[in-house]
Amino acid sequence: MHNLFLSKKEIWYGQWKVHTSKSVSFFKFKEEAMNLLTNTLNQIEDLDEKTMSLTKERIDNLVKPVGSLGKLEEIAIQISGITKELYPVLKDKKIIVMSADNGVCIEGIAAAPQVVTEIQTYNIAKGVSGVGPLSALSGAEIIVVDIGINAEMNYEKIINRKIRYGTGNIAHEAAMTREEAIRGIEVGIEITNEVIKNGARLIGTGEMGIGNTTPSTAMLSVLGNYHPEEITGVGANLPLDRLSHKTAVIEKAISYNQPDKNDVLDVLSKVGSLDIAGMTGIILSCAANRVPCVIDGYISTIAAIIACKLNPKTKKYMIASHASMEKGAKAASDYLGLQPMLDMNMRLGEGSGAALAFNIIEAALLMNKNMITFEEAGIGVV
Amino acid sequence: MHNLFLSKKEIWYGQWKVHTSKSVSFFKFKEEAMNLLTNTLNQIEDLDEKTMSLTKERIDNLVKPVGSLGKLEEIAIQISGITKELYPVLKDKKIIVMSADNGVCIEGIAAAPQVVTEIQTYNIAKGVSGVGPLSALSGAEIIVVDIGINAEMNYEKIINRKIRYGTGNIAHEAAMTREEAIRGIEVGIEITNEVIKNGARLIGTGEMGIGNTTPSTAMLSVLGNYHPEEITGVGANLPLDRLSHKTAVIEKAISYNQPDKNDVLDVLSKVGSLDIAGMTGIILSCAANRVPCVIDGYISTIAAIIACKLNPKTKKYMIASHASMEKGAKAASDYLGLQPMLDMNMRLGEGSGAALAFNIIEAALLMNKNMITFEEAGIGVV
Repeated sequence: MHNLFLSKKEIWYGQWKVHTSKSVSFFKFKEEAMNLLTNTLNQIEDLDEKTMSLTKERIDNLVKPVGSLGKLEEIAIQISGITKELYPVLKDKKIIVMSADNGVCIEGIAAAPQVVTEIQTYNIAKGVSGVGPLSALSGAEIIVVDIGINAEMNYEKIINRKIRYGTGNIAHEAAMTREEAIRGIEVGIEITNEVIKNGARLIGTGEMGIGNTTPSTAMLSVLGNYHPEEITGVGANLPLDRLSHKTAVIEKAISYNQPDKNDVLDVLSKVGSLDIAGMTGIILSCAANRVPCVIDGYISTIAAIIACKLNPKTKKYMIASHASMEKGAKAASDYLGLQPMLDMNMRLGEGSGAALAFNIIEAALLMNKNMITFEEAGIGVV
Repeated sequence: MHNLFLSKKEIWYGQWKVHTSKSVSFFKFKEEAMNLLTNTLNQIEDLDEKTMSLTKERIDNLVKPVGSLGKLEEIAIQISGITKELYPVLKDKKIIVMSADNGVCIEGIAAAPQVVTEIQTYNIAKGVSGVGPLSALSGAEIIVVDIGINAEMNYEKIINRKIRYGTGNIAHEAAMTREEAIRGIEVGIEITNEVIKNGARLIGTGEMGIGNTTPSTAMLSVLGNYHPEEITGVGANLPLDRLSHKTAVIEKAISYNQPDKNDVLDVLSKVGSLDIAGMTGIILSCAANRVPCVIDGYISTIAAIIACKLNPKTKKYMIASHASMEKGAKAASDYLGLQPMLDMNMRLGEGSGAALAFNIIEAALLMNKNMITFEEAGIGVV
């Protein structure tokens, strides 16, 4: 499959060149690539109300008090509306992890050095990081994409779709150009289209990128009208005494870049990140292909917000997984309007929460399929 | 196994007689049975701090920010302390469902008629109710115990340990005698001891009993000093306009029976229920046998509170599963001091939330076992 991606890359991308300065890049697109985002947005349809109402009718007649299985019922109904199937079986599951670096790391907003993005991306691809065992448990494969790591990656299991060697330092410049942001989304769409073409029926978002809670919080501040102080958290164990500095960097990034809150691509390109661009693409492709998309934690939820801004129907294809411990996570979930099902005090990313939710989603489908109705039990409705 | 239980019953119980009035019962115990509860309480030890600290050390060195896997880390450490193993494998999992009727149903505190306890117990044993598919997903077997159903049950998969044909109507009489309450706990201990002897390494509590949120709420009111109004909920879809009646019945039960809040067996016998007595026994047996016990929802949490009152060390062997939608559930969890990991808006009981949590617990163990440390990754701590 990876070779396929590479050959597709040549088809889609045309000439692909990265400056050796490791700070800027240049793309020459073919016409069809320019339209991929627009085409994908136009493909996204409503859920199938008829299948949903048939599923709801069955679930309301299962041998239990109406509504007593809560979110399991909602998930089963939603997935029937996504797949147009009464008893969907989503055996082929993938976690797609977008890895990229953030130039703003130089401002000292993260506890770990930037090189950890590179190291940890290898670990994720090898299945030995946090998301590995959790994906294995639910039978999900991990797809790892280098969408902007500040290093040459050399491992067959890491798909090279590098747009640039990390974003610009948003405290003093734009994260990327508008074209790069669009291209980042399209990389996510292309990868996910391919994964779905190859059989995937349930997809989770994942990311790796030291420093990525900083652009996430900058975007949430702008889009959701939060003051950075309200939502800036410690990410991956930033010492508490550096939190006010991180907040100040986010304020500075917004103040310098002046992103237009009504233009989500402007926000993404000016104070965003490449992993989030890629995840936005994952989510949009899932919606366009009618595949349920499981949203991981805080960073993923920001991508989900961007996807919704691009096409609000996208939200109907999302399933929120876990309530991240990161400070802004609740604000992000509330702003998106999706409530997570897992309350694990997790804050790892990598798609770890999404992987954990896969089993709950499978439980929802089994509930719908294998419980019996009052009629099947040979008893009247009670 | 069921035959074994029956023969054990004869050994343990001695003469066993139920009056035909279906409202009272009489037990003649052998000396050893009288001591089972006391012996079990005396067997409960602390967790193994040494194994826990070794496990914590490993988890803190896995390739992730310290603490970033939240409750998964806590669960893995707790289970290592319970089992005294660094890498426990808990393949043999059981949900034990205690089924019993509540005489207070005659007061109209439940939406479903009492006969549903009988019907649904058959469905649970057949694996076609809510807990069935959820247990199947995690490879758990369901053990169903008739500890007080108001009907003769006739199905090989339902273990007969009936103490009486439902409790008394707590609005006007005690739920049961003190001896019956102790006997109920001991039935739970005996069943669970046997299940563990046969190999079970992870156990979840479950119950079925129309009307059982009423005794649950009565007990929580007494033990936790809540006014019934604060914590009385609709259970299994009681119409809202009958909620104040249910609250009044609970007030009446407390006022009539005057349970002594400092004597938990007095509370259980006067305003409690047989399923909760049985689940208390499950929890105590798990703690005595060093087996992790997964607490389902609201009703199970009340049993967990009783088990903790009998021996506070029991709490160390508990894992809370889901935050039930029942009104009193949060108060019960807070009073117990255990925070659930699943937020599914469920309120079914039967052990359905515990079954759903089994996979999360397996994920915690796999995380500990299959992630690599910084040293194993050949990199310094970051």
